[in-house]
Order: sequence, then C-alpha cells, then structure tokens
Amino acid sequence: MFSERVSRLDSSLIREILAITQRPDVISFAGGLPATDIMPPLDLADAPAELRQYGATEGEPWLREAIAEYVTGEGRPCTAEQVLVLSGSQQGLDFAAKLFIDPGTPVALEGPTYLAAVQCFRLFGARFAQLPVHAGGIDPERLRASLIADRPAFAYLIPTFQNPSGCCYDLATRRAVARLADEFRLPIVEDEPYRELVYQAVDRTPITSLVERAPWIYLGTFSKTGIPGMRVAYAISSDDVFPYLVRLKQAADLHSNRIGQWAMHRLLTAPDREAQLDRVRAFYRGKRDAMQTSLSRHFSHLADWQVPAGGLFFWLRLRQRIDTQQLLRQALKENVAFMPGEPFYANPVTEPGELRLNFSHAGEAQIEKGIAVLRRVVEAAYAQDRVLA
Amino acid sequence: MFSERVSRLDSSLIREILAITQRPDVISFAGGLPATDIMPPLDLADAPAELRQYGATEGEPWLREAIAEYVTGEGRPCTAEQVLVLSGSQQGLDFAAKLFIDPGTPVALEGPTYLAAVQCFRLFGARFAQLPVHAGGIDPERLRASLIADRPAFAYLIPTFQNPSGCCYDLATRRAVARLADEFRLPIVEDEPYRELVYQAVDRTPITSLVERAPWIYLGTFSKTGIPGMRVAYAISSDDVFPYLVRLKQAADLHSNRIGQWAMHRLLTAPDREAQLDRVRAFYRGKRDAMQTSLSRHFSHLADWQVPAGGLFFWLRLRQRIDTQQLLRQALKENVAFMPGEPFYANPVTEPGELRLNFSHAGEAQIEKGIAVLRRVVEAAYAQDRVLA
Repeated sequence: MFSERVSRLDSSLIREILAITQRPDVISFAGGLPATDIMPPLDLADAPAELRQYGATEGEPWLREAIAEYVTGEGRPCTAEQVLVLSGSQQGLDFAAKLFIDPGTPVALEGPTYLAAVQCFRLFGARFAQLPVHAGGIDPERLRASLIADRPAFAYLIPTFQNPSGCCYDLATRRAVARLADEFRLPIVEDEPYRELVYQAVDRTPITSLVERAPWIYLGTFSKTGIPGMRVAYAISSDDVFPYLVRLKQAADLHSNRIGQWAMHRLLTAPDREAQLDRVRAFYRGKRDAMQTSLSRHFSHLADWQVPAGGLFFWLRLRQRIDTQQLLRQALKENVAFMPGEPFYANPVTEPGELRLNFSHAGEAQIEKGIAVLRRVVEAAYAQDRVLA
Repeated sequence: MFSERVSRLDSSLIREILAITQRPDVISFAGGLPATDIMPPLDLADAPAELRQYGATEGEPWLREAIAEYVTGEGRPCTAEQVLVLSGSQQGLDFAAKLFIDPGTPVALEGPTYLAAVQCFRLFGARFAQLPVHAGGIDPERLRASLIADRPAFAYLIPTFQNPSGCCYDLATRRAVARLADEFRLPIVEDEPYRELVYQAVDRTPITSLVERAPWIYLGTFSKTGIPGMRVAYAISSDDVFPYLVRLKQAADLHSNRIGQWAMHRLLTAPDREAQLDRVRAFYRGKRDAMQTSLSRHFSHLADWQVPAGGLFFWLRLRQRIDTQQLLRQALKENVAFMPGEPFYANPVTEPGELRLNFSHAGEAQIEKGIAVLRRVVEAAYAQDRVLA
C-alpha cells in the first residue's frame, strides 16, 4: 500500500527511550531539552493583528533582516535575501534530504551524529559515509578519501558542540573541511543548534563562511536559547540553492507561524539579549561543571571523555565494550536514565560502549547522586562481563 | 548536484501571478485569502509559560481532544488518538506524498484541483489519473474505470467547496466513491479546508466517514475561519496509517507550534464559536451573492457557472476556447485580476477557457466594477478571436 520510502521509516528509538525515562522518580540524563527555568518569558500581548493573515513563504522581512545581521555578526556574512525562516531546524534537514537524496545517494556525516538527521536522510534512501569524530573534529584526510571513494552528494556537519558528542571542531579542521568542499564542489549542510551555548573561549568560525565555491546551507535555531515551543528557525544558503529551498518550503507548509516569528524578532533585537544569553550560559556552565566534578569523582577509572566547551551533553567512552542498551535497563532499575550511544551512528556499531549524558535537566544534587548510581551500575556490568569472559 | 526530484520542483505560477496582481490599484479576484476583517482577534496574553518548551509530536492532548469532538460532531467519528496536529494542512499533503508516492506512482485526483497539491505530489514523482469535476462531483463510473486501468495508490479529493471549482459532491456521489474505495481498498485523502464556509443547506457528509475498510486520511484546518498566520491544522486517519503519519511529523518539524495550538483550542471551544462562524458565513455569503448578481448581469451570454454553496470561489467556463493567461494580461491592463484556470489541472489542458474568481477580497462595489471590466475584456477577446478565425 505504501511507498518504498515507508519501509525505511524508523520508529524513533529515542522517543521510546524518553517515554520510559520521564517517570518523575527517575534522575534523567537521557533527554536533551533546554531548561524551562532559563527561557525568556512569553510576552505576546502586543503581537500585531495583521499577523493573523497568511504570510510570505520566505518569512517576515523584518525577521530575515535581523537574522542576517545577527548571523553576519557571528562570522557568516549574508543578506536578508539569503534567509529562509523555517518551522524548526528539523525542517531544514527535510529540505536538504529532498534537495540532494535519491535512493542510494551517499551522504557524508559524522559518527556519531544527530539521530533525527540520520532518520530523515534514511527515509529518502541515503546511504552513509561515516566520519569518526575526534577531539578536534573529523579527520580531513579521511574526508578526502571518502570524497574520492564514496562521492557523497553533500556533507552534513555539526561542527560546534555537536549532539551527541559535544565535539567542537578546531579552526585548522574547519579550514581543511572548507578547502575540501571547494576542491570537490561538495555541498555543505552546517547545522548549528548549540552555537550560542558556549561556556569557554573556543573557535566557532562557521565552516560555510570559509567555503568559497561550494554550495552550502547553514541551519540555525531559536530553540536552544529562545522558545522552542514556537518552532522558529532558519536556513541561510548560497544563491545556487536558495530558490529551491523556497519552493520546498512552499510545498511543505506554505510559511512559518508569524506570531512565533514576531516573538523571535523581539528576542533577537532586545537590548538585553547579550545579558540574557550570558545568564543562560552561566546557568548551563554551572551544570556542566557539576557533572564534570561528579564524573571525575566516579568515572575516571571507568571511561574517557572530553569536557564539552558548549552544548548540553557529555559523551562517555567506556573502557570495556558493553551493550549500553542493556546497561540502560540496569540503570533504570536504579531510577537513573541516560542515552545509549549506538543509535547515534548511521551505520552499525561494532564497538559498543558509549553513552550520552545530558546535563541541562537534572539539578546539581541530582547530578551527583545519579552519576554515583551510574558508576555502581557500570562497575557491576564490568564485573559481570569479566565473569562471563 | 541535486536529486532527480528537484527537476520536478515547479516554480509556483500562482505565486508569480499573485505578485503581479497585488498592486493596490488592481481589483483582484485572483487571490484566495480569507478576509482579515472577519478573523477572530489575537488574544495571546494568557498563553501559559509551560508552552515555551518543546511539545509532543502528535500535538497537545487538549487540542487533539477538542478536534476529535468537533470532527465527530461533523459526522466523521474519531478519537483524540487518531488526531495529528499539523503546521498547516499543506503539511498533510507532504505527508501523503511521502507515504504513498514513489517515482511513477499513479494518483487519482480531480481536474481541476488544488494546485499546491499537484505540485507537492509531482515533486515526489506522481503521475496523475485525472477525474473531471461536474456539478455533483466526479463521475463514480469514471473513477471505477481509472481504478482498473490506472491502479492509483490513493485518491486525493476535495469534495466540499473545492478550490478552484467551488464544487460540492452530492450525497449519492460521496456514497459511490466510498463504496469504490472499499471495493478496491483505495486509500482516500479527503481535504476539507473550506468545509465551514457554507452558505446554504447542502450535504457535506465526509466521504471518509462512509468508508468501511479502505485506509483514509482526513485533513482539516483552522486557516479559513480561524487565524491562518498561526499555521495550525490537523490530520485524522485510519489506524493503519496513523503511526506512519506521526513518524513523518517527527522527521519533518518535530511538532507544531504550541502557542498556535493553544489559540486554536480557545477558538474551537469558545462559547460564541457558532455565532462567530455565522458572522463569517454571512460576511462571505454577502460577497458571493454580490458576485453572482454581477456575473448574472455581465456574463450570462459569455460563460457558464454554478453558484457555489460554500468556499471562496466562482469557476467560470467561457463559451469560447480562449487562452486565459493571455486574457489575464489584457485584464491587468484594465487593473482587474483573476486566476487562469489551466494551472489547476494536473495534466495538460486541451480546451482552455476557464477562470477562477475569488469573492472574499474585493468589496461589493469593486466586485461589480471589476466584473463589468472583465466582461469588456472577454467580449474583446471573443471579437478578436472571431476576426482571427
């Protein structure tokens, strides 16, 4: 009855895990929601009545102007005419898939990477050229080899505080990736949802700003520091791509909700915006540091990790190969939840034993308590493994 | 560089025509926007702060409940668990395309039909089995023949006050279509954006409520009687389809904006909702009657049409074959705009000479003036045609 595509329509493992882990008695490091405590207030009483009518597909002109100004200030120069307002940056992934992916099309992406991107690209029939994520980003030589061997239609990259790994590419890697994109005319889809959540000095030059000839799409969102329930995000692209994005937007949902655009414009142009961002960063930095303290105390002998310079996640590599979905079942018995690492890989994982820990949800006391519980669960699994071996 | 799909990504002729026709000095019958004058006020001051956070993919439970109750009352019984909130009902067309269409998949639809549906289905590679629209709907015997010859994956139908034709299926046709759907297990996608804009007693039984075994998707929206700028609509479906719709929603934009959902819930459950709908209907009925008066005065010798029982459009069949895009150029010289009929057909038109006239935008005096101008333009074209013949 259905299209061939539907056979590739995954149920979301993450949604199922999150459903289990949302019991109120569970200390959850599993989710990835921004904290409601630190969101800007809803303030919609002044929204103009004219926004009730249908709007422009590209988005409101004043919001496109403000986004262009902001993103230019962030080092990715662009004009308002290059900005397409989206109903959440997930929509940008749907459009990238529609633009580039036929059944069997190779796509280069990080391993691990954002799960919902993999699911979206897989739906359209992508196969995956997976590039391992190291401390400074992907290995450019490995990307070059993949460009020659796999000939991907585009590269999907989350170079700044990636979900799930927390990785931030160093500047040399950003430059090398941009040079390869130009050399091979490789379209780059750069996804930057966590960019604003930065807790220490670190290079965040957009890779697409370093590209000179290759086509590119840059995705940003207001969901991590603004109001995610509004579903307002944006795509910026090179001129050879933009007209197609607009047509895809027209076919997908005509335009994004205008009240949300108005509210995001107000946040983006508020005089206290930098102060608000600083509050958000201080809030999350405190939680990150609390988790780092607990991890140092409990996990130094069990796992390896980098302290993330931004974003919402720690990524742990356990020192023993272990089925982390089995580990999750054990942890849930003790009322602690985390996210198993395997689902974040586009291709099957041969060396399991990674896990993602979110630090934005639990309170600091809960973080210490939950990490201590997790230590016992991992130790027990290691011991059992040794017995089994 | 792009996917094969992109070669089928139409630029929207309607968007281009609308851009031309939005000069303030033009009397426009070209658009199809609901009138801002009659929209409910924006009233968002009380929106709860908890709606700032990410929400459920399926939609807010209280809105799903209210929609189920409303749609059940309209004669399409369903439960809240069958309701998926959408970011505009255009999104339901994107999902139907993803669910059913591989390159080359035949789709049964009306001729003429909603242009943006054709564009969306074409993007995914559909070919079209087109069923002519008559006064009482499509011809069931012609549908049967198409089901045998073309074997469409689904039928896309707008049985109530269709855009562009204004047609409303009679009950016998609704029943016959539902019987055929059951006999052939033909999935039905029933699109009802104009359902509430009803100006006289007429049968509006949803076809999907008459279906017993075939899969179905029913699309409704708040954009014609509520607040289109909020982008909130809904899909209801049979149980064999619903889980796939939810996964497609997750992959497309995670969930619909929650403030819009809250506002639409308030409108849907307002004590004065029926009174508000009656005001809207009276407003549009007056405009429809004004256009009918003018058409009777000026077009009885030039064209044939039905008085639409609802919706926003008259559909004129000129008595001579004529290129209506050429006619539009002539009309624009006289500062009057309409929508040529040809683009509304999925397959090439061999007998041009139809046009769509919107009656919701222009004032009543403008309607008379514009129709009188249009008469002169058509008469001139007829005369020129005779000279040329």
